[in-house]
Amino acid sequence: MSCSSLDLAPLLGGANASAAADYICNQFTDAGFAIDTTYLLFSAYLVFAMQLGFAMLCAGSVRAKNTMNIMLTNVLDAAAGGLFYYVFGFAFAFGGPSNGFIGKHFFGLKDVPEPSFDYSNFLYQWAFAIAAAGITSGSIAERTQFVAYLIYSAFLTGFVYPVVSHWFWSVDGWAAAGRNAGESLLFESGVIDFAGSGVVHLVGGIAGLWGALIEGPRIGRFDHTGRSVALRGHSATLVVLGTFLLWFGWYGFNPGSFAVIFRTYGPSGSIHGQWSAVGRTAVTTTLAGCTAALTTLFGKRLQTGHWNVVDVCNGLLGGFAAITAGCSVVEPWAAIICGFVSAWVLIGLNKLAAALKFDDPLEAAQLHGGCGAWGIIFTALFARERYVNEVYPGRSGRPYGLFMGGGGRLLAAHIVQILVIVGWVSATMGPLFYVLHKFGLLRISAEDEMAGMDLTRHGGFAYVYHDEDSTPQNGSPGSGGFMLKSSVARVEPRTTPAATNREQV
Amino acid sequence: MSCSSLDLAPLLGGANASAAADYICNQFTDAGFAIDTTYLLFSAYLVFAMQLGFAMLCAGSVRAKNTMNIMLTNVLDAAAGGLFYYVFGFAFAFGGPSNGFIGKHFFGLKDVPEPSFDYSNFLYQWAFAIAAAGITSGSIAERTQFVAYLIYSAFLTGFVYPVVSHWFWSVDGWAAAGRNAGESLLFESGVIDFAGSGVVHLVGGIAGLWGALIEGPRIGRFDHTGRSVALRGHSATLVVLGTFLLWFGWYGFNPGSFAVIFRTYGPSGSIHGQWSAVGRTAVTTTLAGCTAALTTLFGKRLQTGHWNVVDVCNGLLGGFAAITAGCSVVEPWAAIICGFVSAWVLIGLNKLAAALKFDDPLEAAQLHGGCGAWGIIFTALFARERYVNEVYPGRSGRPYGLFMGGGGRLLAAHIVQILVIVGWVSATMGPLFYVLHKFGLLRISAEDEMAGMDLTRHGGFAYVYHDEDSTPQNGSPGSGGFMLKSSVARVEPRTTPAATNREQV
Amino acid sequence: MSCSSLDLAPLLGGANASAAADYICNQFTDAGFAIDTTYLLFSAYLVFAMQLGFAMLCAGSVRAKNTMNIMLTNVLDAAAGGLFYYVFGFAFAFGGPSNGFIGKHFFGLKDVPEPSFDYSNFLYQWAFAIAAAGITSGSIAERTQFVAYLIYSAFLTGFVYPVVSHWFWSVDGWAAAGRNAGESLLFESGVIDFAGSGVVHLVGGIAGLWGALIEGPRIGRFDHTGRSVALRGHSATLVVLGTFLLWFGWYGFNPGSFAVIFRTYGPSGSIHGQWSAVGRTAVTTTLAGCTAALTTLFGKRLQTGHWNVVDVCNGLLGGFAAITAGCSVVEPWAAIICGFVSAWVLIGLNKLAAALKFDDPLEAAQLHGGCGAWGIIFTALFARERYVNEVYPGRSGRPYGLFMGGGGRLLAAHIVQILVIVGWVSATMGPLFYVLHKFGLLRISAEDEMAGMDLTRHGGFAYVYHDEDSTPQNGSPGSGGFMLKSSVARVEPRTTPAATNREQV
Repeated sequence: MSCSSLDLAPLLGGANASAAADYICNQFTDAGFAIDTTYLLFSAYLVFAMQLGFAMLCAGSVRAKNTMNIMLTNVLDAAAGGLFYYVFGFAFAFGGPSNGFIGKHFFGLKDVPEPSFDYSNFLYQWAFAIAAAGITSGSIAERTQFVAYLIYSAFLTGFVYPVVSHWFWSVDGWAAAGRNAGESLLFESGVIDFAGSGVVHLVGGIAGLWGALIEGPRIGRFDHTGRSVALRGHSATLVVLGTFLLWFGWYGFNPGSFAVIFRTYGPSGSIHGQWSAVGRTAVTTTLAGCTAALTTLFGKRLQTGHWNVVDVCNGLLGGFAAITAGCSVVEPWAAIICGFVSAWVLIGLNKLAAALKFDDPLEAAQLHGGCGAWGIIFTALFARERYVNEVYPGRSGRPYGLFMGGGGRLLAAHIVQILVIVGWVSATMGPLFYVLHKFGLLRISAEDEMAGMDLTRHGGFAYVYHDEDSTPQNGSPGSGGFMLKSSVARVEPRTTPAATNREQV
Repeated sequence: MSCSSLDLAPLLGGANASAAADYICNQFTDAGFAIDTTYLLFSAYLVFAMQLGFAMLCAGSVRAKNTMNIMLTNVLDAAAGGLFYYVFGFAFAFGGPSNGFIGKHFFGLKDVPEPSFDYSNFLYQWAFAIAAAGITSGSIAERTQFVAYLIYSAFLTGFVYPVVSHWFWSVDGWAAAGRNAGESLLFESGVIDFAGSGVVHLVGGIAGLWGALIEGPRIGRFDHTGRSVALRGHSATLVVLGTFLLWFGWYGFNPGSFAVIFRTYGPSGSIHGQWSAVGRTAVTTTLAGCTAALTTLFGKRLQTGHWNVVDVCNGLLGGFAAITAGCSVVEPWAAIICGFVSAWVLIGLNKLAAALKFDDPLEAAQLHGGCGAWGIIFTALFARERYVNEVYPGRSGRPYGLFMGGGGRLLAAHIVQILVIVGWVSATMGPLFYVLHKFGLLRISAEDEMAGMDLTRHGGFAYVYHDEDSTPQNGSPGSGGFMLKSSVARVEPRTTPAATNREQV
Repeated sequence: MSCSSLDLAPLLGGANASAAADYICNQFTDAGFAIDTTYLLFSAYLVFAMQLGFAMLCAGSVRAKNTMNIMLTNVLDAAAGGLFYYVFGFAFAFGGPSNGFIGKHFFGLKDVPEPSFDYSNFLYQWAFAIAAAGITSGSIAERTQFVAYLIYSAFLTGFVYPVVSHWFWSVDGWAAAGRNAGESLLFESGVIDFAGSGVVHLVGGIAGLWGALIEGPRIGRFDHTGRSVALRGHSATLVVLGTFLLWFGWYGFNPGSFAVIFRTYGPSGSIHGQWSAVGRTAVTTTLAGCTAALTTLFGKRLQTGHWNVVDVCNGLLGGFAAITAGCSVVEPWAAIICGFVSAWVLIGLNKLAAALKFDDPLEAAQLHGGCGAWGIIFTALFARERYVNEVYPGRSGRPYGLFMGGGGRLLAAHIVQILVIVGWVSATMGPLFYVLHKFGLLRISAEDEMAGMDLTRHGGFAYVYHDEDSTPQNGSPGSGGFMLKSSVARVEPRTTPAATNREQV
């Protein structure tokens, strides 16, 4: 807020000038709360919509027989994440004053609201936290026990991710670019990971990498000669639906990360303020994704000979994951470079994954991990001086992008970010997956994998297009009809004699 | 708005102090209109998105053969509801000054805008009104004549629901907690049904209860021994899509119900204001839904032996329906209690429904009626004194939650709310459904029900995955192909020789 | 912004009255930027969501075998449109000061932000630009080469559409109602095409008309006797999903077109301001669509004998396309007339199209072109004087609606608009499609059309409901199972031996 009663009072003059100035400036403070909360809450709602996007993207990318399973994990990311993040996740992330490593206030939202955190901040951060778990669930899709999912998801959302977000986003974080005044910055710079190419996408991607590595590929993913065999997802329509919803939600993710929009950058009354930076961030986000999509379109066309919408969707999302770190501090033309390179990073990593027989059904480790890491480097190369100082104000002489003449300190900080995130997530999630594996809690049986998890664990297939009761009307079953193996679909789970009494599923 | 020229003028001093203070405060008034309208309109858009959520949830929950039918009812809820609510619904609900029973101004939006109601208020309330009809359509799905649907929907949206919303939400309403100053409150308290666990969900649920009771269960829903047989919906993916959209839209429904966000609660310039309450409402809503989802997950796992995503979705929605009444006046921890109990209410009512051979394809009566009623009671137990006084200001010594030390008067008022809503809806919708039944206008024929309503009433099936014209390319039809009974799908309705000339459907 | 330091300074008095007034008014300017940017950006996000709506509507309206193709075009509308509109589209449209025909600044967003255009304006206008290309892609669906799509889409988004938007929406445009003060208006009125019934819908529709005319109908669309044969879309569910998303997004399209919401219409501090007009615009939009939907429901019921949800959806969208021009300047009751007539325009044009053997798979030319043209006329008949002067301020004695007593000059201007748009789009897109046709780049081969474009060009079918690897578990393939011709689905494109090594598609 730029209204200062110290500035205004002398201008007003009179006996009660100070009180009058207070009165007026307080009104602006109120207006600021109302405007910023509106802006932040609706941004949070958009970020939440990304969870729906993930659910549809994941559902479309797996085979029909595992649809119920993957969608349930997405619903639970949001639901379980809500409770864990409320009880301790938000406290670990932002509970200051604290040390540089982990927060220690706000457990169960105690002492909220206070001047730096209102309920809207919690809601916004919760929507971020559940995204990380969503990314990881894609990597280990179609072969993971449900109980393993519940365990890693709680650990990731409640502890691993909040700690990382504390380091880079909290004012107490040891590597935060926006660290409290008076405390030293990492390489006199701190890390500019504005909306989380590292904090969200790299974290989710590396967690997924370990999960997928330890589980190994799905049955049939590589044939006996070791060649890669595509296990096609069951619905490109759901992939496109999910991709567009993620695009829609990314406008909450990136431009929303400013948290406040009513802040001037220069003298009051000019066009320069955070509102303009918010808009610019929406533009850089858009351009990076668009460029990555087009690059992927033509890149894959050259490689495979066809125009593939699913590849274009993944390329697009990789572009978004990459621009997320630097979206607020780079020029629109730089965002185009970001997206262009991002597409090739994803194409290259997918080739590498196939060569190494690494199976990630959603390409999540490659996309969120690989493009996220590229985005961190990109920011350190292209961050513009003026934008860095506007978005992270209060320190003179900040480093900025290497290619923009800002020296190498930002790059050094960003390399450290990649290393510590990879290290931290590997040191926490790797052992967790390994222990689950050793105790036989990680991967489902081969029989279950062949039959599909929906049938064996989730009460039946996701789709029933043929209605058994109408069969007599329409001829004999199986005569070329549109039917999902009705006899199988009605099988009730072994463990429950009461199941035939169940309500509508 | 807290800027008062009476307060500011003496501080400014000078000959024109009063005019100067007016000038400044009027600017804040303008800003408030702009901020509040932005907040309210985007909330209205989110509530409207719930109609899409209902459509997808309903579509996924019915059999493929009735998909077109149920989706058409959802589209028409919104469309017909728009006209009815414009012509008289809004007037019955909010057309004051009036009596406590029914409003009498604003027919056709005459005299809007005026200080208490602008167009944005109408749009917001319209989006609420169509939700009630949407709830009811789920209860009577898969067996109701389309004309019956048109009749009850118009009656519910245009009259039954508006009258209820007048009682509890209008400043003239006999039971409203925010009644005009100077008029007595029910039990000196009035009913705190902030966003409509009673006004919307209980109304829709009770209407659905009578419809489903009078129609009786779908053919095959209970076998000849009386055992419950699940008639599975045709797409769990659509159920998840619809659920997430409803969750998304509920952020308009609950936090949006404040209607204004630019209002202080204490002295100006502090962090305490309606913006914070709006955020808290989003948080309580989230936590109630999350808890209900997790409770349902484990509760149903124990009962049925599998992890069912569709049950989790219904549990989640039940939690939202329950928190809707008290979302603005309870603490986040209380919302967790609300969601936990809500899950068991739904599980219990579903068991009861099966035992009583009550068939509601969407569980709408149990979910919106049962969890909605629980939410009304919950609010009377857990409403916090400070929040009640902030959200419903201007009366000292208001009752609040029984368990929070606020006495039993709020509970008494809320029990009255449940009784009068059940009574009013039963007295209006019950006879309507009965008369339709008696005149043979309610239920479709057994033949139509077996064949599916889409084929007999709506021009064909919703899905055509096999293209007849390409058959020669791909082998003979019916050889295990992906086809929806092509010969049947092309059948044209009997009544129209012109139909073969129709455009693309 | 209405705070004027010239007005306020004399009221404040004192030595520094002018500085004090500046200080205070500048704060309001800042608040205005924050409020208006929030309002505009979230409106832009809603308009972007329409692209998802188009994708789902188009996907559901084509046959399953062309689903991947049409969805790819929708993704690329947004992606390629982003780059083209950034590089030159926005400059052609709004790059002033310029001449009346085409803009010439802001290439690559150079010199943005400046007082009249911030990044948020670019984002909003981009979301509009891609809508036009989306409309056209519907008209030529299921038979157009992908390369032709890329060419026409770039030309339309980057040049044809921006020029039209310059004419009617730029302050330099020769036919704009909001033209710079001092420059003469077309018929002393200019064209009131508030949100683009002409600029967007008629442009997209006429482009589609030429494309569809030059390509000719799909194989099988008219039988050997010339009778119309419906080629049903493959999923009514996707049609409903897309329609609701378009409805949702239209609240960004129409009410968002004000661009600013913090503007008073009368003396400050009253209820009359742009916020109220924004809300009224949302209401007129809603009522026009609702009325068109209901009119179509009953109109088609009389014609065809059934209640068709897909027809209702198209009718609804036609109502929206029609109200788009006049949404801000007509009364709610007039919007009902607009929607009613719009439904019959669409029904009539569809009959005409069938009679003329014109095949537009999405009815896009009829819907966006026909209803859009009606909306332009409607506005010239029903625009209300007060609203016209509030929305297009600064000129006294403006013409308004003919039926409202405003004379015929607005109608004359609007007839000119229809003529020049039809002329300009025909003169640019017609030859383009013709040249593509002559060079054999427009239409796919008959074999490809029969087999479906997804298989021959896009790497396989959109849907794989049967998992081949699980076949041994579930009986022999083809025994009535739920399968999309698995042997065909695995066929790899001829041109790429590397394809079997591809990642997850």
